Amino acid sequence: MDISGLLTSAGINTGLCLVFFSLYSVLSKQPSNESVYFGQRLAQLRLKRRRGRLSFDRFVPSPSWIVKAWEASEEEILACGGLDALVFLRMVVFSCRIFSIAAIICIFLVLPLNYFGKEMRHRYIPSESLEVFTIGNVKEGSRWLWAHCFALYIISCSACVLLYFEYKNITRMRLAHIIGSSLSPSQFTILVRGIPWSPEESYSEIVRKFYTNYYATSYLSHQIVYRSGTVQKIMSDAAKMYEMIKCTSTEQNFGSRLIRCGLCGGTTHSFKVLASEPESVQRQNDFTESDLKEKECGAALVFFRTRYAAVIASQGLQSSNPMLWVTDLAPEPHDVYWKNLSIPYRQLWIRRITTLLASIGLMILFVIPVGFVQSLLHLEEIQKKFPFLRGVLKNKVIVRVVTGYLPSVILMLFLYAVPPAMMLFSTIEGPISRSGRKKSACFKVLYFLIWNVFFVNVLSGTAIERLVVVSSAKDVAAQLATAVPKQATFFMTYVLTSGWASLSSEIMQPYMLLCNFFNKFILRNNNDPSNGTLSFPYHTEVPRVLLFGFLGFTYSLLAPLILPFLLVYFFLANLVYRNQILNIYVTRYQTGGKFWPTMHYTTIFSLVLTQVIAMGVFGLKKSTVVSAFTVPLIICTLLFNEYCRRRFHPIFKDNPAQVLIDMDRNDEQCGRMEEIYKQLQSVYCQFASTSNAVCNTVP
Amino acid sequence: MDISGLLTSAGINTGLCLVFFSLYSVLSKQPSNESVYFGQRLAQLRLKRRRGRLSFDRFVPSPSWIVKAWEASEEEILACGGLDALVFLRMVVFSCRIFSIAAIICIFLVLPLNYFGKEMRHRYIPSESLEVFTIGNVKEGSRWLWAHCFALYIISCSACVLLYFEYKNITRMRLAHIIGSSLSPSQFTILVRGIPWSPEESYSEIVRKFYTNYYATSYLSHQIVYRSGTVQKIMSDAAKMYEMIKCTSTEQNFGSRLIRCGLCGGTTHSFKVLASEPESVQRQNDFTESDLKEKECGAALVFFRTRYAAVIASQGLQSSNPMLWVTDLAPEPHDVYWKNLSIPYRQLWIRRITTLLASIGLMILFVIPVGFVQSLLHLEEIQKKFPFLRGVLKNKVIVRVVTGYLPSVILMLFLYAVPPAMMLFSTIEGPISRSGRKKSACFKVLYFLIWNVFFVNVLSGTAIERLVVVSSAKDVAAQLATAVPKQATFFMTYVLTSGWASLSSEIMQPYMLLCNFFNKFILRNNNDPSNGTLSFPYHTEVPRVLLFGFLGFTYSLLAPLILPFLLVYFFLANLVYRNQILNIYVTRYQTGGKFWPTMHYTTIFSLVLTQVIAMGVFGLKKSTVVSAFTVPLIICTLLFNEYCRRRFHPIFKDNPAQVLIDMDRNDEQCGRMEEIYKQLQSVYCQFASTSNAVCNTVP
Repeated sequence: MDISGLLTSAGINTGLCLVFFSLYSVLSKQPSNESVYFGQRLAQLRLKRRRGRLSFDRFVPSPSWIVKAWEASEEEILACGGLDALVFLRMVVFSCRIFSIAAIICIFLVLPLNYFGKEMRHRYIPSESLEVFTIGNVKEGSRWLWAHCFALYIISCSACVLLYFEYKNITRMRLAHIIGSSLSPSQFTILVRGIPWSPEESYSEIVRKFYTNYYATSYLSHQIVYRSGTVQKIMSDAAKMYEMIKCTSTEQNFGSRLIRCGLCGGTTHSFKVLASEPESVQRQNDFTESDLKEKECGAALVFFRTRYAAVIASQGLQSSNPMLWVTDLAPEPHDVYWKNLSIPYRQLWIRRITTLLASIGLMILFVIPVGFVQSLLHLEEIQKKFPFLRGVLKNKVIVRVVTGYLPSVILMLFLYAVPPAMMLFSTIEGPISRSGRKKSACFKVLYFLIWNVFFVNVLSGTAIERLVVVSSAKDVAAQLATAVPKQATFFMTYVLTSGWASLSSEIMQPYMLLCNFFNKFILRNNNDPSNGTLSFPYHTEVPRVLLFGFLGFTYSLLAPLILPFLLVYFFLANLVYRNQILNIYVTRYQTGGKFWPTMHYTTIFSLVLTQVIAMGVFGLKKSTVVSAFTVPLIICTLLFNEYCRRRFHPIFKDNPAQVLIDMDRNDEQCGRMEEIYKQLQSVYCQFASTSNAVCNTVP
Repeated sequence: MDISGLLTSAGINTGLCLVFFSLYSVLSKQPSNESVYFGQRLAQLRLKRRRGRLSFDRFVPSPSWIVKAWEASEEEILACGGLDALVFLRMVVFSCRIFSIAAIICIFLVLPLNYFGKEMRHRYIPSESLEVFTIGNVKEGSRWLWAHCFALYIISCSACVLLYFEYKNITRMRLAHIIGSSLSPSQFTILVRGIPWSPEESYSEIVRKFYTNYYATSYLSHQIVYRSGTVQKIMSDAAKMYEMIKCTSTEQNFGSRLIRCGLCGGTTHSFKVLASEPESVQRQNDFTESDLKEKECGAALVFFRTRYAAVIASQGLQSSNPMLWVTDLAPEPHDVYWKNLSIPYRQLWIRRITTLLASIGLMILFVIPVGFVQSLLHLEEIQKKFPFLRGVLKNKVIVRVVTGYLPSVILMLFLYAVPPAMMLFSTIEGPISRSGRKKSACFKVLYFLIWNVFFVNVLSGTAIERLVVVSSAKDVAAQLATAVPKQATFFMTYVLTSGWASLSSEIMQPYMLLCNFFNKFILRNNNDPSNGTLSFPYHTEVPRVLLFGFLGFTYSLLAPLILPFLLVYFFLANLVYRNQILNIYVTRYQTGGKFWPTMHYTTIFSLVLTQVIAMGVFGLKKSTVVSAFTVPLIICTLLFNEYCRRRFHPIFKDNPAQVLIDMDRNDEQCGRMEEIYKQLQSVYCQFASTSNAVCNTVP
């Protein structure tokens, strides 16, 4: 591919982006789309929808949303999206910063050196091959490689400095979040699983005895988890039936009054009995309470008098059989994934292993579509194998589209299926919270992307004829150094298509828009089923941003032309995600910034891989001294990572005792405790429809 | 090598073993060697040494020590050597059992199949090559490989069953050990490191404030750790000088009385002042107390009122800066490694990384002697390179010694240097307890042995001409399957020489014997400097036993002839180690059975590796169905391991809360607590020589 091919791709994508952004600007002004584009505000304010006047203004694209998104302060983001959203945006901002530095260094220092690296006659720039701009163009043993090494040092050091301050800042924010959510019931609650079964006593009785015996001073009450698979179904079916009968009864009441009232007096009365609420609910509850005692499962939420007592009870080994009385801090009430709480604890490890194997299987099977995509980049191979295509592939425009656009599109389409699959795996795994499930899916998707988008592309690109992916374990650095630069073109187009297009799709929300359109204008239904239920898809967006960061680091030195496109991506991403967090997504649960360590470690991994590849490249260029000079950099980066892991990471795993004790004291002095205890009795509701019956905690 | 070569080696070693064991029997009856062979009894009873009569009985070897060792019950072992010794012996017993089963299966089923595996004319057995008895002799695609697969299933299943019951049993013993050591001060004590520094207050003051603030109800007192590097040196120098002066003064007192008393009256008096104990110690203490306040370091032992409170305070995150107030449960008083307590906490991670790198470096550098040993096995290669050796190597006896004996001896000599080096690394690493240091050294030596004795031998054996050790990462199983069986001969002789000889050397204690001889008969000194200070060298013996187990598993199917030699080794080891634990080693500190998980995981690793190698071998023999049949076995073994890890391992990391709370209640009811508190005040002594001055804890 040459410069003009790249520019074609860039042109197509810039055009598409502009079109979509303008379209968004217009569509978001239509009152009928309010539920799509302002889901959060609707959920927060429950405002009465204005029936907008039909003005000219509504149909002119304007950049007002950009201004609003740009001007939103950190506090606003925190208020709208919680700490997770802020952490995510900090990641985007970090990427903007570091790649600005990298772009300045690499475009003004590295790019000219690459271009003039070999004594050769340069052609007219638009028809110049992209290879000329990569490190491949520097001749062997050149002194100019010192400049590359210098650029690598600058990028690594500034990345570490920025990462350190971000980590410090986010740790501070997490502590503030812990202190700030002082009324959160989850801080007083632990989840116990693996309660030992006894034929004489109910689980509830066993839990009460255990905690009154061993935690007498701090134990407050508990709430047993019920088997949800069957009960919940019965309950929700009953609730639905009741709702249906009530609806029909009231309708028929009206109807009968109007039409049948004179015919017979009995019918209206019989319907009225069913419709009168208190009695029927009472009857249902009787059924429930007697039935539920048999449906208890070996898990319970236990409430404590202080936060510190809850933390203590959630830590360490409780009983001499480690499979019994397994404790964890409970998630927030909205965050609890009730369905998984009833999974027997002894099943969990098998589930974890199974899903791990399934994820690895998916990662391996995905090589097939990636191999197909790669084959499109090697047109000569295809032409050899399928001679009938030769005529078509002579057309220059088609070649440009096929090599510059099609591979990424195909890959993107396949990739759309991955996050739901990983989410399914994470559900089967058995996490106790929705945020935990999302975090676990995020890891899986991240590993998947880095493996399948980067490594498989890189390695299969060099070894397209043989299926052996990793043929030799020795000198990985040299292997990568030969393979990675060759794929620069592919990844440039990948950033353009996948990156930019994903932002357009993110802001347009095509799926939601279609649903809304279908709902409003075809079904003529004014109830929005999705209103205020959309939560930020961290499991797709975090891995995507991290993948682009990863590509940015690895290619910054090798093919600096990728950096401008990446910078545009990150700046747009900053705007788009800010806008989405402020307007669309509703935060009903969060991890409290626990995504940051993932981001940090991925960035460090990218840095180290960049350094290793650079070392390999310098070695291949026969500049062993320069190559040796990168070794201390690798060691320092790893040491820096280790330091950060020790200095900051523990706060993302445990809540510090000192802080909790101080919070407890504060609340006790203010007399807020009684209020919290009262709240605890009813806040965790397994079956929302019959909250009164099931949520009564055992004192 | 042929059978007769092997028998030569076995003969030499059996003879040596008999000689050494008889020698031990005689030597241990000599009263002068009591301190060498009965160190423990001497330490325990402080018995008056009997000046034995010169009877004929003393010079006749007798098997009485074998009977005594055999008859010792589990309780006696536990009383003499603690839980660690018992766990170690359980490992040996487990090995005896599993290799008895393996030997029966493999000798009666696998060995004949190997021998008659190919249609060939068998020679007279003594001159038959050892290769004939290995799996290499089975022809490709043979149905008899199903018998090998069956044997593998039997061995794996019985190993898992035995391991499960051992783990269960040892977990029970560990719980009993926790409950049994109810008066142990370490259960009430935590070690705090990373105390924040303040210019206004001393560390002691800061600790007192922190714990009275946050742990007011359970905090008892604390004891600051002092910088030992300088202070301890000054202190011990002072103590030594004082001791010296005292000695010389008393001597001179005597001397002056006899000779100089009439010349001047002043000299005796001036010496007497120095010699009078109370005053001078008082003076020294004055110096100490004022000096020590400046020498406090940021670590302290904090005592709590209950065991449970100590466990709570030792768990989780204490402060919002994870590098401050880092807590661990304290080791036993005898177990504390005081020197390391004063290391600033923030240094520890660097130390850990450094020692890790150093250990890996040592492992890699060790390839050089191993390569030399390997070259001795390939005599043809050597003859090619050094033609002048051809004459010498024509002598059959020399060839047998060189191939059958010399390589193992050289390897053994080099290996002697490894445990001290690893111990040094483990010391630098900064563990807080002696037992922790030993455990860490044990890991290092274990990895070292398995890597350097097994893998490097196996892989360099196949690739002696090229230096590339691991050339290909793909199909590891096939690689191992070709490489491992070739080294069967070497490992058989290794078991004979290294294994049997190590037992002879263990029971003879040649170094101690020489020291004792030198001390008693050359220096004429009756003080035994080593009396009662020798603790069991787990860091050399555990890895050794595990290595032989590892070799036994991997070669049981491939070359069953190794099993009889191994069985002899394990039966002898059982006797010898029992005897040593009962008589020689003194247990002043222990880990409480924490060596068992290491043993368990190593055995599982050996099993899985055996299965992988078997899979590879079956694959190479073109029996893909048999090969596929081993896959479920590998999966089941890994699942079994995961189950054990979840079911038993946590007890080896934490003490269960339930047990501790019950112990606390028991002691409170019995009124034993006050006694324990009193004991706590003085039991942790950093400077044993000036215990009064430093060990006063701050209430």
